[in-house]
Amino acid sequence: MIRAAVVGAAGYIGGEVLRLLLGHPRVEVAAAVSSRFPGKRVDGPHPNLRGVTDLTFCTEEQLTEYDVLFLATPHRTTMRTLPRLAALAKTVIDLSGDFRLRDAEVFRRYYGEPHEAPELLDEFVPGFPELAREQLTGADRIAVPGCMAAAAILALTPLTDEGLIEPDVDVDARTGSSGSGATAGEANLHAERSGALRLFATSGHRHEAEIAQACGVRPTMTATGVEAVRGVQVVCRTRLREGITEQEVRAAYRRRYAEEPFVRVVAQRRGLYRLPEPKILLGSNFCDVGFALQPDSRRLLAVSALDNLVKGGAGNAVQSLNVRMGWPERLGLEFPGLHPV
Amino acid sequence: MIRAAVVGAAGYIGGEVLRLLLGHPRVEVAAAVSSRFPGKRVDGPHPNLRGVTDLTFCTEEQLTEYDVLFLATPHRTTMRTLPRLAALAKTVIDLSGDFRLRDAEVFRRYYGEPHEAPELLDEFVPGFPELAREQLTGADRIAVPGCMAAAAILALTPLTDEGLIEPDVDVDARTGSSGSGATAGEANLHAERSGALRLFATSGHRHEAEIAQACGVRPTMTATGVEAVRGVQVVCRTRLREGITEQEVRAAYRRRYAEEPFVRVVAQRRGLYRLPEPKILLGSNFCDVGFALQPDSRRLLAVSALDNLVKGGAGNAVQSLNVRMGWPERLGLEFPGLHPV
Amino acid sequence: MIRAAVVGAAGYIGGEVLRLLLGHPRVEVAAAVSSRFPGKRVDGPHPNLRGVTDLTFCTEEQLTEYDVLFLATPHRTTMRTLPRLAALAKTVIDLSGDFRLRDAEVFRRYYGEPHEAPELLDEFVPGFPELAREQLTGADRIAVPGCMAAAAILALTPLTDEGLIEPDVDVDARTGSSGSGATAGEANLHAERSGALRLFATSGHRHEAEIAQACGVRPTMTATGVEAVRGVQVVCRTRLREGITEQEVRAAYRRRYAEEPFVRVVAQRRGLYRLPEPKILLGSNFCDVGFALQPDSRRLLAVSALDNLVKGGAGNAVQSLNVRMGWPERLGLEFPGLHPV
Amino acid sequence: MIRAAVVGAAGYIGGEVLRLLLGHPRVEVAAAVSSRFPGKRVDGPHPNLRGVTDLTFCTEEQLTEYDVLFLATPHRTTMRTLPRLAALAKTVIDLSGDFRLRDAEVFRRYYGEPHEAPELLDEFVPGFPELAREQLTGADRIAVPGCMAAAAILALTPLTDEGLIEPDVDVDARTGSSGSGATAGEANLHAERSGALRLFATSGHRHEAEIAQACGVRPTMTATGVEAVRGVQVVCRTRLREGITEQEVRAAYRRRYAEEPFVRVVAQRRGLYRLPEPKILLGSNFCDVGFALQPDSRRLLAVSALDNLVKGGAGNAVQSLNVRMGWPERLGLEFPGLHPV
Repeated sequence: MIRAAVVGAAGYIGGEVLRLLLGHPRVEVAAAVSSRFPGKRVDGPHPNLRGVTDLTFCTEEQLTEYDVLFLATPHRTTMRTLPRLAALAKTVIDLSGDFRLRDAEVFRRYYGEPHEAPELLDEFVPGFPELAREQLTGADRIAVPGCMAAAAILALTPLTDEGLIEPDVDVDARTGSSGSGATAGEANLHAERSGALRLFATSGHRHEAEIAQACGVRPTMTATGVEAVRGVQVVCRTRLREGITEQEVRAAYRRRYAEEPFVRVVAQRRGLYRLPEPKILLGSNFCDVGFALQPDSRRLLAVSALDNLVKGGAGNAVQSLNVRMGWPERLGLEFPGLHPV
Repeated sequence: MIRAAVVGAAGYIGGEVLRLLLGHPRVEVAAAVSSRFPGKRVDGPHPNLRGVTDLTFCTEEQLTEYDVLFLATPHRTTMRTLPRLAALAKTVIDLSGDFRLRDAEVFRRYYGEPHEAPELLDEFVPGFPELAREQLTGADRIAVPGCMAAAAILALTPLTDEGLIEPDVDVDARTGSSGSGATAGEANLHAERSGALRLFATSGHRHEAEIAQACGVRPTMTATGVEAVRGVQVVCRTRLREGITEQEVRAAYRRRYAEEPFVRVVAQRRGLYRLPEPKILLGSNFCDVGFALQPDSRRLLAVSALDNLVKGGAGNAVQSLNVRMGWPERLGLEFPGLHPV
Repeated sequence: MIRAAVVGAAGYIGGEVLRLLLGHPRVEVAAAVSSRFPGKRVDGPHPNLRGVTDLTFCTEEQLTEYDVLFLATPHRTTMRTLPRLAALAKTVIDLSGDFRLRDAEVFRRYYGEPHEAPELLDEFVPGFPELAREQLTGADRIAVPGCMAAAAILALTPLTDEGLIEPDVDVDARTGSSGSGATAGEANLHAERSGALRLFATSGHRHEAEIAQACGVRPTMTATGVEAVRGVQVVCRTRLREGITEQEVRAAYRRRYAEEPFVRVVAQRRGLYRLPEPKILLGSNFCDVGFALQPDSRRLLAVSALDNLVKGGAGNAVQSLNVRMGWPERLGLEFPGLHPV
Repeated sequence: MIRAAVVGAAGYIGGEVLRLLLGHPRVEVAAAVSSRFPGKRVDGPHPNLRGVTDLTFCTEEQLTEYDVLFLATPHRTTMRTLPRLAALAKTVIDLSGDFRLRDAEVFRRYYGEPHEAPELLDEFVPGFPELAREQLTGADRIAVPGCMAAAAILALTPLTDEGLIEPDVDVDARTGSSGSGATAGEANLHAERSGALRLFATSGHRHEAEIAQACGVRPTMTATGVEAVRGVQVVCRTRLREGITEQEVRAAYRRRYAEEPFVRVVAQRRGLYRLPEPKILLGSNFCDVGFALQPDSRRLLAVSALDNLVKGGAGNAVQSLNVRMGWPERLGLEFPGLHPV
């Protein structure tokens, strides 16, 4: 049993980290930090945890020592607090965007301001077992990827690893409202956000940089807010290199994910759910990936879906912890998702 | 052609008043006041009005003289601004809660503070043609009822007018999110409000007082937020007086609404839409009312549905204006609603 | 490890039984019967089970011997097949309506035709640990209650057990679309069912009889289809007996459910989720129950929420199995539900 | 006043034709044909028309003579019935797919079987005023385009007319459930369709052929079912030809649609609704079109949104009738859409 603390525990990602850790057989949640709700019960902002825990939030000042620290604080907070917080735990798992990019210059371009701790960028390993399982073993600085980036990367790596596609990729991400967090504003007001099909980003989305870094492609990303709270679907439109066949594509996906506990290849010829769809993944750590060729051309769709708060965030963090600790990778992540839903 | 001004025109009710007036053949929208967006285009906060108007918002100070003034300002604003604004127009139509109740003491009890202009309460006529058509002819102070109150009153008056029911009535109102307005907060954050079945009021809702005043019953009201942006459904549970038959109930509804242009009696034995439902009323000024007896008892359900921003607000205001002016009552209110939707 | 078979395994309830049993540490799913999909993979109609099982459906004829048989077949099927199927397993857990009512005459009245195996009615124990925990220990004929009935009964029993309320109760059930099953028809066509507030039952609903039987009240039930796939909320409107106070009501709920692993009392003064709401219960076996008094009267709201396919069906079945076997009651039912969602 | 008959009047498109014609000042609905509901009231399957009409459905055999006949019958029906029905009216407006393509061979490829009346293909003019206003004047055979095709074509023609883009276009269509009509099946079962992000077509969609025909591009189309009943959004991804600037693109859209009554250019730098979104178009005949350049590349997004049953069907039909008759083009089509919704 190891002791964990969660900073930023009152937010949506923080709450999901708590949910998963409270159900994890080898982790004890020793502290949950919230600057807004110190002293208040954790099941106030997270009503799904009623009857599951009696924990109350504490302040950052009240933190002592832990085996692992999860940082679910806003972008640009981690890079400021890390030097201080890192002293409290051997292992730090960051869920913000601060340590996902290796290149400080790329960070500056996508985040619009300089990185404040560029010397630490090299210390971080991606909290992404499908990409960095070996590095994660024993890693103590882990940066979990962005939700849309994670989905896109899982859709693309079977293709890019084997050099099957051309470098230009249109990344069309569709996302629920929980990705923008628990802070109320006009953009996530129910009357405005309900039923939306909102192209809120047509270029320069931060996750674009992560995709480029991981896959070595030239992504052009758009993001559309759709009617959902949880869930991300990514549709990548690209072209196969000359002469590549459907069988080779299918084999590449199969090979790449044969041993992966949380990636399922979904590319059927029939059925309602023949390509990945996020609604059946709510609460689950699965990422479904699939593809479809467009005949009479070399165009290919690579599609993926996940729950942005689980495989796109807290689930990847816990899976990374499992890998880092040498535990069975599925531990605490067994919930398969629901249907119908 | 008369000239109208709308105060509070950037809000949801104000926007709906604008939409209806811009399509009204005898009204010119001469001014739209917004304290937040002075000088900005009206079709900014109301994107449905793009291509319909080039109007920009002005400030209250820029108002001059109009034939009619619509006040779509928050509760407790009208009673403060009325003395000043009343000088600008012969006719004032208020959509806030300030002048709906005739008794200042009841106002104090339900709104939690004293009325600031109790001497004006008597001047106001309900902006509710089904209840006050004669009073409205020539009226110059008009107070439009609350959305859930309007629905409940239309469900109940055929029964109370003819003394068919006992005085205790459970009023079970179900409502979309637009009723709480355009100001963002935790309660209407999409991730929280989506898919809600939220009993946000279990007693003391302000609309309860309006129902009691109009129908002479003892209402006990609950309000549930449901997954919808627009739309109110009210289910009244009550008991028939001894010996009253279903035929008498049906006849009472038929008689009461035979000549009403915007109330439809919907109480069928078959079909998906056999009782009133708000979704087919989006954008429409119809209120559907119906009923169902519960056999082996004298229990009765009286049900109604409307669009809270139209028949529950802006539509009632425009219909009242039509009556007040002696115009055909349907003018500018012809949109019937959609199906499927 | 015991061996289980599920009949009617391609339906929504059957799929949920499969999901729970596949995650249960002491149960092996040995057979899944579907008359529509014999030989096909279970994860076809249940795409959430991809990667979780390689099971295929078999026919009823292919069944051999099992420790427990779950019947998720339509109403009026179980009473015909039970004599035959009962030979295949010591323990039978029925999820249909056939053996929920003890009185064949009440069955006839509510189901519109005579019971075909009335002599077996007495053999069944309610699959409802909160009501029949002792009877379930070692029981071999178990009938899981209806989803809306289960919710209403859990809301009411703390009150009826202690004689706190009068016998007349209005039961206002709100339900998602999955309750009507996987057979397509006009009523559950997306374009019609989406955004519905549909009073589809105003009297004589079958679950009414179960509530009367379990609680000894005179329920008058209405059922409204709301925009949701999963989830039931029940609002019971009743009156406290003379002199009963809010403290006594609260104490009764607390006492009744202090030791229950899957019932949470949710009756707070503040917060968005201060009364039970089904959305945070998706996939969970919790039933939340709460109450609110309406001042100046003896009126009381008793409110409950659950996932109709879990605590309102498959979860109750598995929890009953746990009790029957003497296993820890939470086994295989640990998923707490999600927020936000 | 002209007399119109609608064949296929019980379906979703037929109902929308009825709604628009019943509100049209120069058209009398003289007959509504339904093979399923002969003799039944029109407001049964179309509950939004209660109180608007007392019309009942008739059979095709009961048809006599009319000025205009609207055919809202399924694909492959019109080409069989046209020779017979054409005798009943001078003007025929077809809403099926049968006469949209000029080339019988392309029809065969996309519809999977030969056209049965290829000799009539040339007689039809597109029911699409933005593309064929002059041809429509006096036209007697009018074929209304497909909903997703209409949206894509309006997004693209400003660019293709002026030769601003390269010929390869990815057409990413997102659509509500009403497009698949009122016939129940697994694909539009609420529990399955709700919350969907379903790539139901990844190549060979029939509307692709219409886009190619109208715009002279090589479209590769995908279609995703999203959570909505009405509404289509199309995102076209393409590349600008060398040297084309954003100003030229903006000017092309402005020029192309300056005089169009039902196309609005929506391409703002700020605001929630800065690109086209279908929800604010429910019930409206507007098509919103916009664009966004993706910097550091010549990539361009051309975006459009419409209500598939109005501008994507019945509205285009009525607008075409207005043009054909020489009436003001907005007649009967004034409803602007709602916000919030």
